[in-house]
Amino acid sequence: MHILVLGAAGMVGRKLTEKLLRDGRLGKHDITRMTLQDVVAPAKPATSIPIDIVTSDFADPGTAAPLVAGKPDVIFHLAAIVSGEAEAEFDKGYRINLDGTRYLIDAIRAIGGGYKPRLVFTSSIAVFGAPFPDKIGDEFFHTPLTSYGTQKSICELLIADYTRKGLLDGISIRLPTICVRPGTPNKAASGFFSNIIREPLAGHEAILPVSEDVRHWHASPRSAVGFLIHAGTMDLQAMGARRNLSMPGMSVTVGEQIAALDRVAGKGVVARIVRKTDPVITGIVSGWPRDFATDRALKLGFTTAEKTFDDIIRIHIEDELGGKFVA
Amino acid sequence: MHILVLGAAGMVGRKLTEKLLRDGRLGKHDITRMTLQDVVAPAKPATSIPIDIVTSDFADPGTAAPLVAGKPDVIFHLAAIVSGEAEAEFDKGYRINLDGTRYLIDAIRAIGGGYKPRLVFTSSIAVFGAPFPDKIGDEFFHTPLTSYGTQKSICELLIADYTRKGLLDGISIRLPTICVRPGTPNKAASGFFSNIIREPLAGHEAILPVSEDVRHWHASPRSAVGFLIHAGTMDLQAMGARRNLSMPGMSVTVGEQIAALDRVAGKGVVARIVRKTDPVITGIVSGWPRDFATDRALKLGFTTAEKTFDDIIRIHIEDELGGKFVA
Repeated sequence: MHILVLGAAGMVGRKLTEKLLRDGRLGKHDITRMTLQDVVAPAKPATSIPIDIVTSDFADPGTAAPLVAGKPDVIFHLAAIVSGEAEAEFDKGYRINLDGTRYLIDAIRAIGGGYKPRLVFTSSIAVFGAPFPDKIGDEFFHTPLTSYGTQKSICELLIADYTRKGLLDGISIRLPTICVRPGTPNKAASGFFSNIIREPLAGHEAILPVSEDVRHWHASPRSAVGFLIHAGTMDLQAMGARRNLSMPGMSVTVGEQIAALDRVAGKGVVARIVRKTDPVITGIVSGWPRDFATDRALKLGFTTAEKTFDDIIRIHIEDELGGKFVA
Repeated sequence: MHILVLGAAGMVGRKLTEKLLRDGRLGKHDITRMTLQDVVAPAKPATSIPIDIVTSDFADPGTAAPLVAGKPDVIFHLAAIVSGEAEAEFDKGYRINLDGTRYLIDAIRAIGGGYKPRLVFTSSIAVFGAPFPDKIGDEFFHTPLTSYGTQKSICELLIADYTRKGLLDGISIRLPTICVRPGTPNKAASGFFSNIIREPLAGHEAILPVSEDVRHWHASPRSAVGFLIHAGTMDLQAMGARRNLSMPGMSVTVGEQIAALDRVAGKGVVARIVRKTDPVITGIVSGWPRDFATDRALKLGFTTAEKTFDDIIRIHIEDELGGKFVA
């Protein structure tokens, strides 16, 4: 089985690649070849499986055709610019997050001859916009309040239509906010949800810019990889024509996050959280989803790797910190 | 006020143009100029108001810029190929129904300097796909089962995002099936809903290809024009960021349509309906919306011209048949 990962240098792309190479298989099929694409060169993993590294701009009309020329059986499409960048750079957002996807599915279609790869597209809960019900159900409508959410929603529609027409075998999964996101603090408005866990565990201070009653929807990186693999292997016939799906996750308040950190790592770690209210971030976050009822995804076999937010913290300590933190 | 009508040669476009020229104004503003565009030349109406006729292909990347160069204040965007054609001609559907709209909104954006026209986009109930609740509410999700519905849904998202970014002042309204559609029978799967009224009133036989318990969602051409004019004049601030809206209509069964025809025109007319079940059409129609709860549109002041299906038939007799029919 040949697997193509688009956006392979990103956090989820790297973790997915590692997991696939560790398993050596996807579902029942041995992996015989992988192609890893991103706009910056993805690191070449040490493996006996043949790996092609492709550095290319997903917004370039010529990028897609050579990527699918080798007829990959499964395509994980994680290529995107993030919400804040898509909002600040209107044209760039549409070029990468919308046109890029269209080039991809049209390149798949152009191959013809019955070529119909599994396409797993990472969508986002940004397809939803406030005001929300207490829990966003599987049939709630899409009213994105960002260009990013608009672009994700459009790609969901395109992939569903191309699937319906028999041109590919697509599924779009909407990931929760990934927590704890490894790496260094970034400027994303959502960054603090991870910063307030990751930085104190590493011995650093972290700023909490919102009040503790802010509620949000999370899943661990390990869950995200699990969702992608399930989406890449499951029988999609069970989904019928409705190929877009909100993934399971965990709804917690910031206060509950901090209480979990206290339980897992102790008061000394929690004391590194510095409260400094930022009205801009508070405003942005107030328009974000807080909770979901993901009955359909659960019924279709999508499960999280964690049962509590304590688990999310423990997964971070295990997967990123070698089991240790700065007490 | 300068008004641009895209798709002006179509049935709704013609009726809208006639109404605007008859009124000489849109809301509080005198109409000082109209531009009528379609792929076939729209008829030049007899009027003292200056009219520009433009014949152009909406899918051509160069079409949009000259149309908006004169900075029309209100744009009624009715340009589209219909559902059946978009399904049969995949590329053509995406080019006209999606790319064409993008060219338009990008051409508006390119003008800049604060130019922010009202854009009224005719969307469709085809953005919804079965299975449905008994009544489709204002927050039901979009799961189109046709490329046409996919393209309409995408345009809704684009217009909402461009509006949110302050690049235009857009609204998308989803018209019910227009009944009674004037003209000759066409091959659209929905054609029979109008054929079984229009043809018998003209003294001709009409084939009914489905059973009488088939329920569907209708509005008269007069209502459609009224919706467009309200959308072109109302204060859109009241809609917030949610600029997409299902229009009011009437849910009736085919049996109720026929009973109304009997009341309005008599048994002799009804006798011209020939029952001849078509399993293909029956299958297509089974996936269509049957009923809506359009509370939001009603609250925002959208109203139909009819209260009963009898009214829909009477409007056809008045507006299309000069008050007479073949008894």
